[in-house]
Amino acid sequence: MKVIVDKKGRKYIVKDKEFSSEKGIISKEDIMNAEIGDELETHMGKKYRVISPNINDYIDLMKRKCAILLPQDLGLIVGFTGIGYKSKIVEAGSGAGSSLLFFANIVGPEGHVSSYEIREDFVEVIKENINGTEFNNITLNHQDVTEGFIEDDESTDLVFLDLPRPGDVIEDAYRILKMGGFIAIYTPFVEQFQIASKILRKYGFKQINIREGNVREMEYKNNRTRPNSRMAGHTGYITFARKI
Amino acid sequence: MKVIVDKKGRKYIVKDKEFSSEKGIISKEDIMNAEIGDELETHMGKKYRVISPNINDYIDLMKRKCAILLPQDLGLIVGFTGIGYKSKIVEAGSGAGSSLLFFANIVGPEGHVSSYEIREDFVEVIKENINGTEFNNITLNHQDVTEGFIEDDESTDLVFLDLPRPGDVIEDAYRILKMGGFIAIYTPFVEQFQIASKILRKYGFKQINIREGNVREMEYKNNRTRPNSRMAGHTGYITFARKI
Amino acid sequence: MKVIVDKKGRKYIVKDKEFSSEKGIISKEDIMNAEIGDELETHMGKKYRVISPNINDYIDLMKRKCAILLPQDLGLIVGFTGIGYKSKIVEAGSGAGSSLLFFANIVGPEGHVSSYEIREDFVEVIKENINGTEFNNITLNHQDVTEGFIEDDESTDLVFLDLPRPGDVIEDAYRILKMGGFIAIYTPFVEQFQIASKILRKYGFKQINIREGNVREMEYKNNRTRPNSRMAGHTGYITFARKI
Amino acid sequence: MKVIVDKKGRKYIVKDKEFSSEKGIISKEDIMNAEIGDELETHMGKKYRVISPNINDYIDLMKRKCAILLPQDLGLIVGFTGIGYKSKIVEAGSGAGSSLLFFANIVGPEGHVSSYEIREDFVEVIKENINGTEFNNITLNHQDVTEGFIEDDESTDLVFLDLPRPGDVIEDAYRILKMGGFIAIYTPFVEQFQIASKILRKYGFKQINIREGNVREMEYKNNRTRPNSRMAGHTGYITFARKI
Repeated sequence: MKVIVDKKGRKYIVKDKEFSSEKGIISKEDIMNAEIGDELETHMGKKYRVISPNINDYIDLMKRKCAILLPQDLGLIVGFTGIGYKSKIVEAGSGAGSSLLFFANIVGPEGHVSSYEIREDFVEVIKENINGTEFNNITLNHQDVTEGFIEDDESTDLVFLDLPRPGDVIEDAYRILKMGGFIAIYTPFVEQFQIASKILRKYGFKQINIREGNVREMEYKNNRTRPNSRMAGHTGYITFARKI
Repeated sequence: MKVIVDKKGRKYIVKDKEFSSEKGIISKEDIMNAEIGDELETHMGKKYRVISPNINDYIDLMKRKCAILLPQDLGLIVGFTGIGYKSKIVEAGSGAGSSLLFFANIVGPEGHVSSYEIREDFVEVIKENINGTEFNNITLNHQDVTEGFIEDDESTDLVFLDLPRPGDVIEDAYRILKMGGFIAIYTPFVEQFQIASKILRKYGFKQINIREGNVREMEYKNNRTRPNSRMAGHTGYITFARKI
Repeated sequence: MKVIVDKKGRKYIVKDKEFSSEKGIISKEDIMNAEIGDELETHMGKKYRVISPNINDYIDLMKRKCAILLPQDLGLIVGFTGIGYKSKIVEAGSGAGSSLLFFANIVGPEGHVSSYEIREDFVEVIKENINGTEFNNITLNHQDVTEGFIEDDESTDLVFLDLPRPGDVIEDAYRILKMGGFIAIYTPFVEQFQIASKILRKYGFKQINIREGNVREMEYKNNRTRPNSRMAGHTGYITFARKI
Repeated sequence: MKVIVDKKGRKYIVKDKEFSSEKGIISKEDIMNAEIGDELETHMGKKYRVISPNINDYIDLMKRKCAILLPQDLGLIVGFTGIGYKSKIVEAGSGAGSSLLFFANIVGPEGHVSSYEIREDFVEVIKENINGTEFNNITLNHQDVTEGFIEDDESTDLVFLDLPRPGDVIEDAYRILKMGGFIAIYTPFVEQFQIASKILRKYGFKQINIREGNVREMEYKNNRTRPNSRMAGHTGYITFARKI
C-alpha cells in the first residue's frame, strides 16, 4: 500500500495494481517501483507524489459507515493517559475502526489492542479496514461487550469506551485494568457522563475528570490574522478515571 | 523505579532504597519485593499503593527548570501528525525534556527521538531526567540547532520545535523530513506563528494549519453539573505543516 | 408598524395596508384594529399572532446590504461601557444601521446617536431603515469620518467604530468624548486591533482592553443535553478604552 | 455624587463632603465646585480626575454582600432581548442590586424595573445602593416571589430571574409578560436550565435558547500578541424564551 498526493493535497491509496483516475492511468509497474518522494505521472500528464503515509492518511481514506473520532479527541486520550508503545488497550464501540487503528499504530508490535463491536455490519467494515494495514497487534471481538470482556487478568493500560451506555461495562473494565491504568469514555451528552461518573465512583475508580477539548484554527492570509469563523462547537466529552 | 500513590492520589517515585517521608519509612526490601497493585505501609501505618506508572507520572515527578508542555498540547501533536511506534522524531527546545520523554514513550525501541538543546543547565536537567528512565531511543544534542540538524537524510517523520524563533530552522527541517512528514511548531504568540507560516510557505511546506487547543473540565458533584469556572485561557498555538 | 408571528416563530412586519402571503390575505382593516396579543387569520385560515416588537425584531426584518453586528457583540458593548438612556453615542461605519438602531433604542429621546457613513448606497439603506421606526434621536451624517467628527464638544459617552482603519479617527474621538467616556472598536482581524491599541495609547486613552465574546448554545431535547455542535468560531474583536 | 480616578485608574465615589484618603484631603468646597474633567488635588499633592461616571462605575463601587452578575452576562441579556428605554422589567433574586441598577439605567424614566428579594439583609444593601443613585424608576419588593408577582397586567417586556429554583415563578412570569416579551434565566448549573426549559415549554414559552457567553481578553504588549492565559471558564448559563 502506498499513498500518493496531487498538487492540491488530495490523497489516494494505491495498491500493487494499475491506478486509474479521470486524469489518466499509472501502470502497476510504476507503482510497484515507486519509492517515497518519487513523482508518478499518469499517461495524461497528471502528477502525483508518493508520500510516507501516516495512520491518519489511512483513516482518512478507509471505508466508513459511521462518524469517526476526531484527531483532537484521540490526541486528548493519548495526552492524558500517557499510553505509548507496548501499551495494552481494550476498546468497545469500534465504529469503523478509526480509534482501533490509531491506537494500534501507537502501541506497536509489543502492545495490543482488543476491540469489541456488536454490530455485524461494522465488524465487516473494520475487518476490511484492518486488512488494508500490516498491523498484527489487533484482536477484533464480534460480541456484545456487556456480557464481559474476554481478557482475564489485570494487564490493561487503557480501556476506551465509545458506547451509548458505557456504564454497563465499567465494573468489568476495572477488573481488567492494571493498578494505575486508565479508563476513557467518550460521550456526546451530559447525561451520559453523569451516569458514567457515578458508576466509576461506585466501582472504585479515582481521579475522575470530565474533559472537553476544542480546537480552533487561526487564519493567516495576506497579512491578516483571525480565528477561523467556523469551528466545531462540540465533539464530545471524554471522561477519564484511574484505577488506583 | 516504582511509583506509589497514597489515598489522596499523591504520587512518589521510589527507587531500590529505603523510602522515607514524614509519615514514616518503608524498607528497601519491601520496595524491591513490591509488585504492581501491592500495598506498602510505613512503620507509622501510612499506606501506599504500587501502581503501573505511565509516562505522565514520570513527567509529573521529574526535575524541572521551566514550564513544560501540557498533555493536551502533546496530545494534539500526536493526534494531528499520526506519529506512533517506529516514528523518527527530531525536536528542538527541549526544556526539561517532557516532550522528549513523551515522544520516546510513543515511538518505542524501533523509533527514535533526537533532541537539541542549547542551554547547558537544561541539558543537565534533561540528562538527569532521561537517566531516571529506561529509554534507549533518545539522542540528546547539546548544540545550537540554528547551526543545522546533524541528521543527514530524509528519514524524519516529525520535527517538533519549541523555540523562540522557530523560523531559523524551518529550511533545515524540510531537508531532514520524509516526503509526507510533518513539522509542528509550538509558540505562545501570534507574531511567532505569523513569521513561521511565512517561512514554512517559502520553503515549500504545504497544509499549514495553525491550531489552538483548549480543554475545559466539567464538574459533576452532588448532582450538580457545570463547567469548571477556572480554565487556561491559552497555552499556545501549534502550527502544523506537511512536506508534500 | 406591527410585527406578527406564525406558529413556527417566523416574523413579518405589517404596515397599515393589506398583508398578503402565499397562505392568504389579511385585510388592512384587521391589521389596523389589531392589538398586541391578538390573533389574525388570513382568508385561507393561516393564523398569526400580533406581538410587541423589540428592536431586534426590527433589525432582523430590515433591509440589509452587508453583514450586521450580532446581538452578543452589541450586548458586550453595552455591558462593558455601561451606556443607557440619555447617553450620547457617536458611531462610524454604520453598515445597514443595525448598531445605530440598537443604540437609539437604548439611549432614548434624551439621548442621541450620531452616525457616519461614507458610502452612498449604505446611506440610502440606513435612511430607509430609520424611516421604518419612530426614532427621532438619530443624526445620519453622509460623510467621510476621517475628515473629522462634526461634534464640537466633549459630550460623547461612547464612540463606536466599525471601520477598516479605525485608527484614523481615534485622535478625533478623544476630542469629542467626555472625561470618563469610552471608545469601542470592532475589528475582525488581529492586525487591526494591534494598530488601534497603539494609536489609543498614543492619544492618551487608558484601560485598553481587547475582548472577544463567544456564545455557545446548549441543546436540551428528549432528556439529552449537549452543546450545539455548530458555533461561530469568531465574529470579531472589540477593543475598549476609556478617556480618563 | 461624583466619581474621581487617580493615575492608576483607581476609582472613588465622592459625595458633597470632605474626601479623605491616606494621600491627603480634598475639601468639601473643591468637590462641590468640581466639574467633569477637572483635576482635584489633596493637600498632600495626590491628583485625581473627575470623570463622567457610568452605571458600571457605580456598581463597581457599591456595597455588596454577594457575587454580582458580570458585564458580559448583563450585556448578553440586553443584546438578545432588545430591551431599551421605556422597557418594563421585572426581576427576582436581586442580590446586591447590580442587575437592577444596570437595567434601571437603560430603561430610563419612562421605563420601570420591579425587583423582588426575599432576604432582609440583601434588601437593606439594595436600598442603600439605590439611595446612592438618582433613579426613580425602581420598585423594590421585599417579598417571596414564589407567592406571585404583584404586577397585574401583561405589560412586562422582560422578566429576569437569578434564583436557585427559577421554575417556581415561570408560570406567573408568563402571565405578566407582553405577547412578544422575553424571560431570561441565569443559572450556574446544567440541572437548573434543564428544569427551567421543561417548565418554560409547559407554560407555553417559545424560542427557548440556552446560551453561554464567554469573554476572552487578548494581550498586546511589546509587539507580542496572545490571548490572556487566565479566563473565566464559566459564569453561568442564560436561558432565554419568548412569549409568542
